[in-house]
Amino acid sequence: MNNYSPYRSFPIVSNDKRVFNFCEIMREITVYAPATIANIVCGFDCLGFALDAPCDEMTLRLIDEKTVVIKHLDAFELPLEAEQNVAGKAVLVLLEAVEENIGFTIEITKNIKPGSGIGSSSASAVGAVVAANKLLGDRFSSRELAEFALAGEFVASKARHADNVAPCLFGGFTLVRSTNPLDIVELEFPPLFVTVIHPQIEIKTSEARKILPTEISLKSAIQAWSNLGALVAALSKGDYALIARSLEDFIVEPIRKKMIPKFDEIKSESLQAGALGGGIAGSGPSIFMLSETLETARTVENAMRVVYSATAIDFNIYVTQINAEGVRIAEK
Amino acid sequence: MNNYSPYRSFPIVSNDKRVFNFCEIMREITVYAPATIANIVCGFDCLGFALDAPCDEMTLRLIDEKTVVIKHLDAFELPLEAEQNVAGKAVLVLLEAVEENIGFTIEITKNIKPGSGIGSSSASAVGAVVAANKLLGDRFSSRELAEFALAGEFVASKARHADNVAPCLFGGFTLVRSTNPLDIVELEFPPLFVTVIHPQIEIKTSEARKILPTEISLKSAIQAWSNLGALVAALSKGDYALIARSLEDFIVEPIRKKMIPKFDEIKSESLQAGALGGGIAGSGPSIFMLSETLETARTVENAMRVVYSATAIDFNIYVTQINAEGVRIAEK
Repeated sequence: MNNYSPYRSFPIVSNDKRVFNFCEIMREITVYAPATIANIVCGFDCLGFALDAPCDEMTLRLIDEKTVVIKHLDAFELPLEAEQNVAGKAVLVLLEAVEENIGFTIEITKNIKPGSGIGSSSASAVGAVVAANKLLGDRFSSRELAEFALAGEFVASKARHADNVAPCLFGGFTLVRSTNPLDIVELEFPPLFVTVIHPQIEIKTSEARKILPTEISLKSAIQAWSNLGALVAALSKGDYALIARSLEDFIVEPIRKKMIPKFDEIKSESLQAGALGGGIAGSGPSIFMLSETLETARTVENAMRVVYSATAIDFNIYVTQINAEGVRIAEK
Repeated sequence: MNNYSPYRSFPIVSNDKRVFNFCEIMREITVYAPATIANIVCGFDCLGFALDAPCDEMTLRLIDEKTVVIKHLDAFELPLEAEQNVAGKAVLVLLEAVEENIGFTIEITKNIKPGSGIGSSSASAVGAVVAANKLLGDRFSSRELAEFALAGEFVASKARHADNVAPCLFGGFTLVRSTNPLDIVELEFPPLFVTVIHPQIEIKTSEARKILPTEISLKSAIQAWSNLGALVAALSKGDYALIARSLEDFIVEPIRKKMIPKFDEIKSESLQAGALGGGIAGSGPSIFMLSETLETARTVENAMRVVYSATAIDFNIYVTQINAEGVRIAEK
């Protein structure tokens, strides 16, 4: 991924259309595509970050036929037909831009549960196109890869949102300034630890979208953009107290939190335990909290565990940190 | 102003309540309070910056009576009664927090025309309280000074908005995350040059506020906060191309620009001349444009001059740069 540089923003034009020679390059690659969290409190529909764990594992092999063959090594019963599979569709769209008569087999072990709200489909799409691009000698720009991944993710979400694709591709915190044309900004950020609780209930993204208002008050919009501007500045300065003060959402959270049992309790107990702040991961049902230290993130984990142990709902909790790298290529 | 540090954000608690001794300190001071521009395109009601010019000049003298005496050396016919005068009111509120039986005479030469949209009343309020605080041995914190200035500005604007007060006090770009409680964020920014045209027409801030919608679409709000987040990141990185792309406003500008003759022409000709972008200064009637170099800012000036010379409206144009310092104390 030598054409990725930190803190760069789109648009990027690929000037790396090297002559492709099969003989010189590898024919198999394994990548790890991280979970991501979008809709970061005051950054609804634009701000996201990547997690160190969990990651999907994907192995791609070059084949001499213009096709994509999917194999899932997990138990999520995702579609195996390439056109219906997020990773498959993304790579099919990538192949449309490839002249040679080549294709890929894609072996996927999903560790990010679909529907958990932490970017499962983006990981599939981004991991697949990054791996394919590597096998093709890095011929596509980051922007092109993001476009291919978006086409893949559309299969699952029926929407064009780059706020999970962007952090999965670039790592760290990313802000999608515009989706059409795609304009992704990589943000500077300090060390941050993340506690994520995933209650084992289902929330459909389409349902979560339907309950949002189409109109909001100018006053609450001003409050929201003031908080987002402050959050971006706070991340850049490493001002943890300001990060905490900026993590407010009076628009989406009050509506969507009703879909997530014990949301208010999880939040108040996490803050009590020392978390800087947090909210709904994506469109839920996962809830995330940011902390300044690993120790605090673990205290937050315990607080969350106490709250959900009093319910009949199964849950997983991850304690991890912000992943600065994005999709990672496995070392041989 | 040794209690000001760059890139710090509120809240700040003053811990500098030193014992005050008249004999040790000066009794007269002159300060220059800069013009400021608020409502920076996608940063409506929160983002502002300070200009190198024009500046108001104010001389304060300590007197041994708890009163404020105003003298204006300009021709703007502003109220001379301290309670009705922005600078006077700000210092009166400051004096409420002072135990000693002291007061000030304030001699004001306003170079920032009231009603021009570039923070004339904020300059009066902030200049006066910074000067008074200096004569009192720096006993108040920046946050306290901002609060006094807001109380003064209320006399003119009948509203509590800190988006001109903040950049006048701190210099540079500031973001007001919250007005109540006051939370001001100083932003990092690269060198930027500013061209401001002030058409000699009157727009009342209260009128400019009345024509705004109370509700906006969630979609346009998302677009606005994505742009503001990107602008804050772009300023921090010194990414001029991203600054240019982020300077979009689809909410306030389309409505308020109708109050300003030739707005669209000024904007399109300025962009044509190489400006990064810009928009309405405050609630108008001034229009500002940002440029990467002084040379471009001067080309923009010429372009603006051509547009307005074809009208019957008188106008002033300033070419200046971002003022990183805020209120400046005159050297003896």
